[in-house]
Amino acid sequence: MELISKVKSFGGEQRVYRHASKSTGTDMDFAVFLPREALDGYACSSLIYLSGLTCTWENVMTKGFPQQHAAEHGMIFVAPDTSPRGEAVANDEAYDLGQGAGFYLNATQNPWKSNFQMESYIAEELPELLIDSLPLDEDAIGLTGHSMGGHGALTLAMKNPDLFQSVSAFAPIVNPMDCPWGQKAFKNYLGDDEATYAAYDACALVASEGWEKDILIDQGMADNFLEEQLKPWAFDAACRKAGIDLTLRLQGGYDHSYYFISTFLADHVAWHAARLD
Amino acid sequence: MELISKVKSFGGEQRVYRHASKSTGTDMDFAVFLPREALDGYACSSLIYLSGLTCTWENVMTKGFPQQHAAEHGMIFVAPDTSPRGEAVANDEAYDLGQGAGFYLNATQNPWKSNFQMESYIAEELPELLIDSLPLDEDAIGLTGHSMGGHGALTLAMKNPDLFQSVSAFAPIVNPMDCPWGQKAFKNYLGDDEATYAAYDACALVASEGWEKDILIDQGMADNFLEEQLKPWAFDAACRKAGIDLTLRLQGGYDHSYYFISTFLADHVAWHAARLD
Repeated sequence: MELISKVKSFGGEQRVYRHASKSTGTDMDFAVFLPREALDGYACSSLIYLSGLTCTWENVMTKGFPQQHAAEHGMIFVAPDTSPRGEAVANDEAYDLGQGAGFYLNATQNPWKSNFQMESYIAEELPELLIDSLPLDEDAIGLTGHSMGGHGALTLAMKNPDLFQSVSAFAPIVNPMDCPWGQKAFKNYLGDDEATYAAYDACALVASEGWEKDILIDQGMADNFLEEQLKPWAFDAACRKAGIDLTLRLQGGYDHSYYFISTFLADHVAWHAARLD
Repeated sequence: MELISKVKSFGGEQRVYRHASKSTGTDMDFAVFLPREALDGYACSSLIYLSGLTCTWENVMTKGFPQQHAAEHGMIFVAPDTSPRGEAVANDEAYDLGQGAGFYLNATQNPWKSNFQMESYIAEELPELLIDSLPLDEDAIGLTGHSMGGHGALTLAMKNPDLFQSVSAFAPIVNPMDCPWGQKAFKNYLGDDEATYAAYDACALVASEGWEKDILIDQGMADNFLEEQLKPWAFDAACRKAGIDLTLRLQGGYDHSYYFISTFLADHVAWHAARLD
């Protein structure tokens, strides 16, 4: 791991690291906020935040404002990138396919499969690297995310309940098999066999994998993507059917932006802290 | 005033307005966060934040994170631009002269004087506009700022103590007559007669105008501009000589960035709230 930058914030330190990823075959950057307790070497709980379409680690670290809350709870906050990047990596002109749009899955189709292995990266390689390199409590790792990253958080937590001890999401894509963003991504990354899609669909995973703990979701009701892409009521129905304890907060007046995320991120950090401590 | 955008945040609303400024002869944009109390029509205290070199209203609103603290204290938070802008406005290739570098003064020299009248804009026109248009308590207006904006806050407050009831600053330029940024700006905007400079120098104004209340300044000790440009000890010495109650907090490890500002902005909002309520 190469340290790219560090800056002091809220008594802790925000660092950006670069490392050669064996999952994606590229260099990957991620940001991590270390509270004072972590700088002093104490094992800390951690929250990994998966960003949405087009984002890098930078969006949540500069506009979501996790540092104050992570410092308050003595929690490590990790922000990975949303895909492999670089001139040698396949891409598409659309904002919702290719670089910046990894959808937290392992692609099986050309030209994507050689680099777009974000499921392996987020659910295996990155946590191993973090545990080896930083004072993370390996039994206290939470997962959250926004939009495409909310999809990633819900699906990867349900598929890896021993690794991720808590999960929440902001305006997540919950049913990608039934929305334009998801259908486009799955067709390109996973191909025409729709039987492979369910392994990456939170509504389907609720039935197949389940989740033994509770889940918190915040959704803005002035979100432009609410009706066509996000449809949180589908996940609510799936959780009710499966007996999963979902708290779905439909927040009046809030949109899809980081003004929405920053408003409620304190609640999510506290919620994870209560479950990880 | 034309409403350019609005977004919900922390139970309140962040708006961006555009208006034709008679001070600058240009359209000027500013952002304002209105807490729920203001949306309900109650007169609120307010804090005007003056940004540093190169900035617009957007920097502090997206990276300083004032919304949470302003909402908590029921305070209106206002972020103006740092200069007039546009193709018809004089400019310079350097980042520290011309557009984005108004230095909160009234220029007397060509080509600057026709538009660069930021003192009049911030200390007269903008407060009048805000009081006329929004539920501001006109007897409870505070002023703060960062770097060049800290210079603006300190100087304009001391020159307008009836208008600005409280003042604080982050890493301010306190002695522009004695630092490269200030000397360059003053020579260009004010000309060769150095006798005109003291009216825009916080260290000089402490002696000539004074300030009957207290002042809060935070300064990061890992700030790259500390030794050459900022030199807060000059202001500390001037305040001690004049008997002004300055709290100067030299914060170990913090730099000049918004990671520094966001760490301490809660303290400043609370500090102003305690003095304005």
